[in-house]
Amino acid sequence: MTDTISDRTKERLLELMRLLEKHTLSGSSGPVTSAQVEQLTGWPRDTIRKDISCLDGVVSSNAGYDPQLLIPVIKKALNLDRRRKFCVVGLGRLGSAYLDFTPDELAEFELAAGFDVNVNRVEMLRSPAPLYPAYKLAEVISRFAIEIALLCVPAQAAQEVAEKCVAAGIRGILNFVPVALNLPPEVAVRNVYIADELRSLAVQMTNNK
Amino acid sequence: MTDTISDRTKERLLELMRLLEKHTLSGSSGPVTSAQVEQLTGWPRDTIRKDISCLDGVVSSNAGYDPQLLIPVIKKALNLDRRRKFCVVGLGRLGSAYLDFTPDELAEFELAAGFDVNVNRVEMLRSPAPLYPAYKLAEVISRFAIEIALLCVPAQAAQEVAEKCVAAGIRGILNFVPVALNLPPEVAVRNVYIADELRSLAVQMTNNK
Repeated sequence: MTDTISDRTKERLLELMRLLEKHTLSGSSGPVTSAQVEQLTGWPRDTIRKDISCLDGVVSSNAGYDPQLLIPVIKKALNLDRRRKFCVVGLGRLGSAYLDFTPDELAEFELAAGFDVNVNRVEMLRSPAPLYPAYKLAEVISRFAIEIALLCVPAQAAQEVAEKCVAAGIRGILNFVPVALNLPPEVAVRNVYIADELRSLAVQMTNNK
Repeated sequence: MTDTISDRTKERLLELMRLLEKHTLSGSSGPVTSAQVEQLTGWPRDTIRKDISCLDGVVSSNAGYDPQLLIPVIKKALNLDRRRKFCVVGLGRLGSAYLDFTPDELAEFELAAGFDVNVNRVEMLRSPAPLYPAYKLAEVISRFAIEIALLCVPAQAAQEVAEKCVAAGIRGILNFVPVALNLPPEVAVRNVYIADELRSLAVQMTNNK
């Protein structure tokens, strides 16, 4: 029951799922203990046990948690067990870069469309998904039930385009434009600003010296 | 004294600095209180006061903190008060997008160079900073004392190229390649993976429904 899990617990469960996936991908089999998770993340093992105990149908033993069983349970709890459609809005250098992601990395997400005001660009760019001129945005988002938009338009257009996306049915926006969007609270927004990432990195660099 | 401030406090101070900058940019003048910060961030106001008290030369009063005075003090404490040079390694769609960032957004960071194995690409791309063929990477990084690399190469090249960057003097890497880099602990690495961002957004969307 997703609604009864706190936001902090969800964040930790998502991070835990990534760790378990890495563990599996690295060829390790066998269970993962909360002590190992504590070592990798710094979270107290009691917190980890408590987080996991929020999940329905969890299978644990003194020997630890089996990644093969725990990953799908976390996915279900976080509502990541169904595929979501996303679109890229604005196909300049950055936006067009996001047309390149391979399905492998994004198994839970499906690129359904790309949009740009520049009709030439829409016709010329190679893309695994269909590209449309911007005036078709509302029609295409609603026809294909696209839920997520990657916003990569110029700064001065960001707010207006974001509002159009939301009116057409978008419920989550990854915002790559360094502009704070003003949208209804039921729309999820995540800002990915290169300047912020550089700053966080620089602060981390002073830690490591 | 940066070394005496905990990592969690640094993260909060960085976030606080962003809030203060927004406050100033939005045209608001006058002080910001810890109660306002609590409302915006959800951090308890005692934590905020304690974080700020870690800073040298802080100027507070019952009326709150003056952003104009507090921003530079936080910058200094986080070692963000000097300009750092960065380079973009790998100039495909994503890498070349990072040549486009305007100095305005990145006042603390200076794009010093771009590199790609494809000499044609190096010659054709428009860029505000000089672009070089990949074989000049070590020489250019060390000659211009470039500290940060944005890693945008194909996955199979990521580890090798990252090692070359580090050997040439790079101390921090923003890694856009969905590969976990294995580097000495004194090198700061921040992974920016679109798949992880999409997952976090999707989890946020389930919260908001």
